[in-house]
Amino acid sequence: MSEEKMRAVRILSHEGAGELEVAEVEKPVARADRVRVCVRAAGLNRADLLQKRGRYPAPPGVPADIPGLEFAGEVEQVGDEVRMWKTGQRVFGLAAGGAQAEYAVVPENHLAEIPDALDFAGAAAVPEVFITAHDAMFTQARLEPGERVLVHAAGSGVGTAAVQIARAAGAGSVYGTARTAEKIERAREFGLDEGVVVGDDPRVFAEAVREWTNGAGVQVLLDLVGASYLDANLDALGYRGRMILVGTLGGASAALDFRRMMGKRLQLTGTALRARSAEEKAAAVRRFAAHVVPLLARRSVRPVLDQTFALEDVRAAYERLESNETFGKVVIQMQ
Amino acid sequence: MSEEKMRAVRILSHEGAGELEVAEVEKPVARADRVRVCVRAAGLNRADLLQKRGRYPAPPGVPADIPGLEFAGEVEQVGDEVRMWKTGQRVFGLAAGGAQAEYAVVPENHLAEIPDALDFAGAAAVPEVFITAHDAMFTQARLEPGERVLVHAAGSGVGTAAVQIARAAGAGSVYGTARTAEKIERAREFGLDEGVVVGDDPRVFAEAVREWTNGAGVQVLLDLVGASYLDANLDALGYRGRMILVGTLGGASAALDFRRMMGKRLQLTGTALRARSAEEKAAAVRRFAAHVVPLLARRSVRPVLDQTFALEDVRAAYERLESNETFGKVVIQMQ
Repeated sequence: MSEEKMRAVRILSHEGAGELEVAEVEKPVARADRVRVCVRAAGLNRADLLQKRGRYPAPPGVPADIPGLEFAGEVEQVGDEVRMWKTGQRVFGLAAGGAQAEYAVVPENHLAEIPDALDFAGAAAVPEVFITAHDAMFTQARLEPGERVLVHAAGSGVGTAAVQIARAAGAGSVYGTARTAEKIERAREFGLDEGVVVGDDPRVFAEAVREWTNGAGVQVLLDLVGASYLDANLDALGYRGRMILVGTLGGASAALDFRRMMGKRLQLTGTALRARSAEEKAAAVRRFAAHVVPLLARRSVRPVLDQTFALEDVRAAYERLESNETFGKVVIQMQ
Repeated sequence: MSEEKMRAVRILSHEGAGELEVAEVEKPVARADRVRVCVRAAGLNRADLLQKRGRYPAPPGVPADIPGLEFAGEVEQVGDEVRMWKTGQRVFGLAAGGAQAEYAVVPENHLAEIPDALDFAGAAAVPEVFITAHDAMFTQARLEPGERVLVHAAGSGVGTAAVQIARAAGAGSVYGTARTAEKIERAREFGLDEGVVVGDDPRVFAEAVREWTNGAGVQVLLDLVGASYLDANLDALGYRGRMILVGTLGGASAALDFRRMMGKRLQLTGTALRARSAEEKAAAVRRFAAHVVPLLARRSVRPVLDQTFALEDVRAAYERLESNETFGKVVIQMQ
C-alpha cells in the first residue's frame, strides 16, 4: 500500500507567519476529466504565504493544508473522460491548491504542454506569472501592437513576465518602475525600454512617463502596487488608457478622481486568478497555450528563476520568498 | 443680403449664472463634408448651463457663444463632398456647439435620419441622451441580453433613455434609483422593473439590489451620481460587473476599495461624449443609427419631453432646466 502515499508540503500551524513541514499524505486519484500529474517542480507564490498565515483558505475540493498553485511534471494517470493527455506527457499548469506535493490532480483543461526549451524547474516558474500577465494585458486590457505599456514592479515575477510578453507581442514601448536601480537594470535584460526607480513619491513615475511619451501617456498600465500609486497612475494614463489592478502591495484604498476618469475616458479593471471558476481558468490556460507557449518554445520569452530548493528545504524556500529580495520565481524541486 | 443672417441663442455674459439673448448672427455655410441643417428644434443639456457660466468652453472651430449640442431639422445645403444626404431630408444629430440657432453646420456623419414616428420636438430630445445611454451600456459596458442593469437617476434624460434601451434590447432586469417616488413611478412607465428612492444614505440601494437579485448583484451599472455612490456601487455590482461613470452630480472624488475591485473583478469606465474626436462621434452616431433609430421607428423606445419653448422664450427654457424639477428633456423650437 506504499504506492498510495506521497510526500507533500503541509501547513502545520497558522500561528504567526505559519509553520510548514514535509509530510506523508494520501496520494490523490484522478477520475472523470481529471489528470494526476507526477510533480517535478512547483512554483511559490505570495498567496502561499497568505495561506500559511491562515488568510487565504483553499477553496472547496482542494487539500486544505497543502499549498501550491502551479506546477510542472508528467502526466501519470488519467480519469476515464480525459481526452487531451496521455501518460508521460510533460505538462505545466494551474492548481487551486495542493501542487507542492509529489502528485497533484487537476482538470485536464488546466494544463498545457511544456515546450522542449524548458526544463521542469523553469516550467514550474511559468504558469501563475505568465498567465496573470497575459490575461491582464491581452484578455482584459486588449493591448494592441504599437501601444505603450507601463508595468509597475517590473522586477517582480508578474512584472518580468509582462515586460517580456508585451515586448514579444509588439508593444510600442514598455516602461517600468521598481524599488531599486538593480531591478530596473535586470528588467532591461527582459526588454524594458525605460525604467524609473520609485521611492516614496509616486509622482516621480508620472513625470517620467510624461517625458518618455511626450505627454501622451500610456495606453495600458499593469498595476501591482494599488492605493499609493492610484493618483499618479491616472496621470500616467493617456486618453482611453486601461489600467489593470493585479496587486495591492501599496495598500487597498485610495481616492479616485472621477473627473480624470471621465475626461480621459479611463478604464480600471480589477483582476485575480485564484477566485475564478474552473471554466474561466480553463479559458485563461487555453489562451496561454495558444499565445504564450509558442513564445516560450522559440525562447522569445523565458521564465525568470530566482532560486530552486529541494523539497526537504521547503522552509528555506518560503523564507527566501518572504525576504522580498527575490528577482524572479522561487521553485521547489519535488523529485 | 438678409439671407445670410439667422437668429441664434447667444451667451451675452458669463457673470454669475450667465446671461442669454436671441441675436441676429451670420448664417454659416457648409463646405466639403459638412451639412447645413435648418434647425427646427434643439435640446438643452446641463453642459449648456456650464457653458453659460463660462466653465465649459466650446472646442476650436465651433461658435464660442452659441450653445447647443443636439438638434433636429432638415438638410438645407450640403458641401461638395457630402454623400449621405440630400436637401429636404429630416435629420437629427450631435453638434460640438452652435445648435441653438436657426441653422447649424455639422459633419455629415454626425447625422441620422429621423424616423416617421417622431416630430421635430421629439427628435431634438433624442440624440444626447440616447447616444450617451446606448454608448455607455452597449459600446462601453457590452450589455448582453439577460443581464441585470442598475440605472442611477432613472428619471433623468439619460436615465429614461437607458431604461428604455436596456428593456428593448432584452436586459434581464432593469433596476433604478431616483431622488423622489414620483420619478420612480414615471420611470416604471418606461420599463423600469424595480426602483428605490435614495436620500442621503446610498446603502439603501445596495441593499435593495441585494434583495432584488438574491445577492447576485447587477452586471452593468450606469452611474450619473459619482463619488457619493461609489462605495455602495461596488456593493451593488456582481462578479465581473461593469460600471460606467457618466456623471458626477454627487461629487468627483471618493475612496476606491481595491480588494473588492479585484475580488469581484470589477471594471470602472469613465465616459464623456463632448470631448471625443469627430471620428469617435461619427462611430457613436453610426451605432445609434443602427441600433436605436429602428427602436424609435417602431416606438419601442420614445423621447421623454419635459417641455418645449419658443426661441423667444429661451431664458425660461434655461430656467426650467436649472430648476432640477424636469422629467425628461427641455427643447427649444426654433422655427
